[in-house]
Amino acid sequence: MAENKIGRQIPESVVNKRYGTFSGASIKEDTYQRASAEVAPVSPGSNKLLSSVREAIEKTGLKDGMTISFHHHFREGDAVINLVMEEIAKMGIKNLSIAPSSIANVHEPLIDHIKNGVVTHITSSGLRDNLGAAISRGLMNEPVIIRSHGGRARAIEAGDIHIDVAFIGAPSSDDYGNVNGSHGKATCGSLGYAQVDAKYADKVVVITDNLVPYPNTPISIPQTQVDYVVEIDSIGNPDGIAKGATRVTKNPKDLLIAQNANKVITHSPYFKNGFSFQTGTGGAALAVARFLRQDMLKKNIKASFALGGITQQMVEMLNEGLVEKIIDVQSFDKGSARSIKENEQHYEISADFYASAGTKGPAVNKLDIVILSALEIDTNFNVNVLTGSDGVIRGASGGHCDTAAASKMSIIVTPLIRGRIPSVVDKVNTVVTPGESVDVVVTEVGICINPLRKDLMDIFKNIPVPQFTIEELKEKAYAVVGTPDPIEYEDKVVAVVEYRDGSIIDVVQKVKE
Amino acid sequence: MAENKIGRQIPESVVNKRYGTFSGASIKEDTYQRASAEVAPVSPGSNKLLSSVREAIEKTGLKDGMTISFHHHFREGDAVINLVMEEIAKMGIKNLSIAPSSIANVHEPLIDHIKNGVVTHITSSGLRDNLGAAISRGLMNEPVIIRSHGGRARAIEAGDIHIDVAFIGAPSSDDYGNVNGSHGKATCGSLGYAQVDAKYADKVVVITDNLVPYPNTPISIPQTQVDYVVEIDSIGNPDGIAKGATRVTKNPKDLLIAQNANKVITHSPYFKNGFSFQTGTGGAALAVARFLRQDMLKKNIKASFALGGITQQMVEMLNEGLVEKIIDVQSFDKGSARSIKENEQHYEISADFYASAGTKGPAVNKLDIVILSALEIDTNFNVNVLTGSDGVIRGASGGHCDTAAASKMSIIVTPLIRGRIPSVVDKVNTVVTPGESVDVVVTEVGICINPLRKDLMDIFKNIPVPQFTIEELKEKAYAVVGTPDPIEYEDKVVAVVEYRDGSIIDVVQKVKE
Repeated sequence: MAENKIGRQIPESVVNKRYGTFSGASIKEDTYQRASAEVAPVSPGSNKLLSSVREAIEKTGLKDGMTISFHHHFREGDAVINLVMEEIAKMGIKNLSIAPSSIANVHEPLIDHIKNGVVTHITSSGLRDNLGAAISRGLMNEPVIIRSHGGRARAIEAGDIHIDVAFIGAPSSDDYGNVNGSHGKATCGSLGYAQVDAKYADKVVVITDNLVPYPNTPISIPQTQVDYVVEIDSIGNPDGIAKGATRVTKNPKDLLIAQNANKVITHSPYFKNGFSFQTGTGGAALAVARFLRQDMLKKNIKASFALGGITQQMVEMLNEGLVEKIIDVQSFDKGSARSIKENEQHYEISADFYASAGTKGPAVNKLDIVILSALEIDTNFNVNVLTGSDGVIRGASGGHCDTAAASKMSIIVTPLIRGRIPSVVDKVNTVVTPGESVDVVVTEVGICINPLRKDLMDIFKNIPVPQFTIEELKEKAYAVVGTPDPIEYEDKVVAVVEYRDGSIIDVVQKVKE
Repeated sequence: MAENKIGRQIPESVVNKRYGTFSGASIKEDTYQRASAEVAPVSPGSNKLLSSVREAIEKTGLKDGMTISFHHHFREGDAVINLVMEEIAKMGIKNLSIAPSSIANVHEPLIDHIKNGVVTHITSSGLRDNLGAAISRGLMNEPVIIRSHGGRARAIEAGDIHIDVAFIGAPSSDDYGNVNGSHGKATCGSLGYAQVDAKYADKVVVITDNLVPYPNTPISIPQTQVDYVVEIDSIGNPDGIAKGATRVTKNPKDLLIAQNANKVITHSPYFKNGFSFQTGTGGAALAVARFLRQDMLKKNIKASFALGGITQQMVEMLNEGLVEKIIDVQSFDKGSARSIKENEQHYEISADFYASAGTKGPAVNKLDIVILSALEIDTNFNVNVLTGSDGVIRGASGGHCDTAAASKMSIIVTPLIRGRIPSVVDKVNTVVTPGESVDVVVTEVGICINPLRKDLMDIFKNIPVPQFTIEELKEKAYAVVGTPDPIEYEDKVVAVVEYRDGSIIDVVQKVKE
């Protein structure tokens, strides 16, 4: 066992040889050589358009033990992962590592592919529902590696993840592999996550249900990175793509939290013309934007840019002129997918541009304010967005630790308790974001400023919101629902949580049944 | 000496170890590992904006013996190369390799930098005027390496050219290095050549005279590839950028050639809805587009795309709906620079996308017809666009051999004679494009089809243009001006001409004085 900087015990067997265990949120500025793809040049007259996914898999030379990747821009509407994995399973290929940018509920068939030995390693932003539960109960021999969106991009750039074959679902493509996500029948807007895969994978297979004449523009993924193109009937269900992401909350507790968060923003020194922000997609986080909009109108303040996963709400602020530009790694709903197509101030960026700590500066470095959700936050301000109160994996790392670390002010919005479960606790089950990068915690009863941010404590002295220490918030939660029983785990590690720099920040153990 | 496939004598000392001598125009499809940049990650709060070019050079760690690059999108209006080289010379750095995408007349101060030992190696698409003449007279110890636009991109991708520091003149940039060429006071439109440099160089310095708020969009070169940004008063003269490129010819010989070329195009099987084409910028080549336009209107035929260096003429055809899209590696005039900004069907592409034989298929692979100029063409159809009739380097390789090799039909337009000099000759001074990739030669007196294209000989049987063998064309030229005296050379090799695949197709020797 190695104990990392935040006191988490990391078994030696899972400690990353290259990066060690988590030692702090600051960027390691050491120079490194970027990874690169192996390229097979394509001659004039050669044809990239193949007749089936099977033929494409065969042509890539996919073999036992290789690594393949997918993007999650279709979320619950994705048809590509299941379709490709089924074909691979039929071909008898085993022992694959899969490296999707994330995994949704709809990908439950992966459970069988794991049982059958087709898939033996997974890295992902997160796991949902039955797959997460199965893995938390010990389905896999090898732990899943959880990486943030920036962390995954960095790992690909640094060669930690080497993708042998990337399968890219494409809302539109020509027969030479020029791809975008904004035109077609299953549009997903930005293809930011897939752009990284296409750049670094040895073989790239584009799977589209919308083959258009050459040259397809705009070009999110260029022909120079694509080996094969396959046309199929449907790559996904457009309704599933937007599913649930933009529900506008009417929950009074969420609205109270959002109002408090908005007060923190508008009383901060960052709230001025040209500021920048990112909101998550949880109920309270989304609601913040509504209150913020009113204050921006009232005080005639305009933002230079909104970043991140983008929703219709941001698009409306762009159209109103409250936000100058949107830079978009992931479009969460039909409104944002339409906007990226029609509005040139709404600009697609890749995942490395968004959040990688391995680039010459990602966009999160330019971010003033980020509003983030939490499943749990503890008295050291460590945040868990991965495991539920039962210790089972059901969330995702996303851009949480990337934006928290790089922004000037990170705000965690969370109710004190959910049902009978406290959200502010002594010690979170799993650390995804270290406390040192959390600046303000906002709940329905009031806020708490991380004592590391003495500057903010001074600034917020007279803010019209009750202020507490983090221990006080925890006591308030425990006073209502009691001290939670510790979760019982077995020794087996089912998931390893990588920090954005590749170091190990925590592990998830098998839950005791 | 090694004799290559087209009978050129290549001294062993300049034979490329990795690729050997020219052995044929077909693509070598062998898989290779793409090169990559060395990256120094940039932390939140770090500042990329520096106060002077000098400070930027110092921060990059530029040292004796390194390789630096520039782009030539400003052509005769460029101020960046001279400015940076002057600063480097002042700093006492010596023995540099420079790898600009091309060199213009305005870069004559390089002569002194060579004399003073600041610059000891050059690779470029071409050389002009006094610098070309000085080098042809033996100014440098090491031969210049002439690479085509596609060949340079391939060489960078393959690691043959490793750029330590790229200096990128930017018509607009924010303080984090997001760059485009379509906004600002010295707009050049596409930044296609610079895009390759930014992707592969270890250090990238953006030099702009138009610093805009973050985030600058559209993004031709992203912040993730840029280390430093410097603001100066002027990066170039916008009038020089377009200088001379789009003169509309009134020369009756040129018009006759253009009419003949247009007949070849319109009688070819490629002239149908959805065809694609590229024209050069010479008088006759440009004039072809005017005649072609009339036939397209008359026969109601539309092109899917126009490729290449783009002029106002192409833009007009786009606006008229005769061309669906323009994909643009280089904008030759103000009209095309404006169009790329305003018309989303006019799309910027990088040099590797345009023409590299090292990618998974460049755009030239999709090209039906290309119209190309020549200084000389010989009875083996080999073309010289580099050296004048006196053997002195004054031209540039450009995309000549790339488009000729990859397109379905390459048309060389040339007068039989220029002044008292024959253009169709027994043996060209210097081979840039091998005869096997030349399909049709068009002169004012008639055309000649390369016998390798038996299919075209059949198709063009009844074309209303006189047809000749290449020997007959040469005889016609010689009959007027006599057999040219051979140029006398010394042994010293002053330039090596690389074919697009890295093999050596020819050398240029020192002219005897």
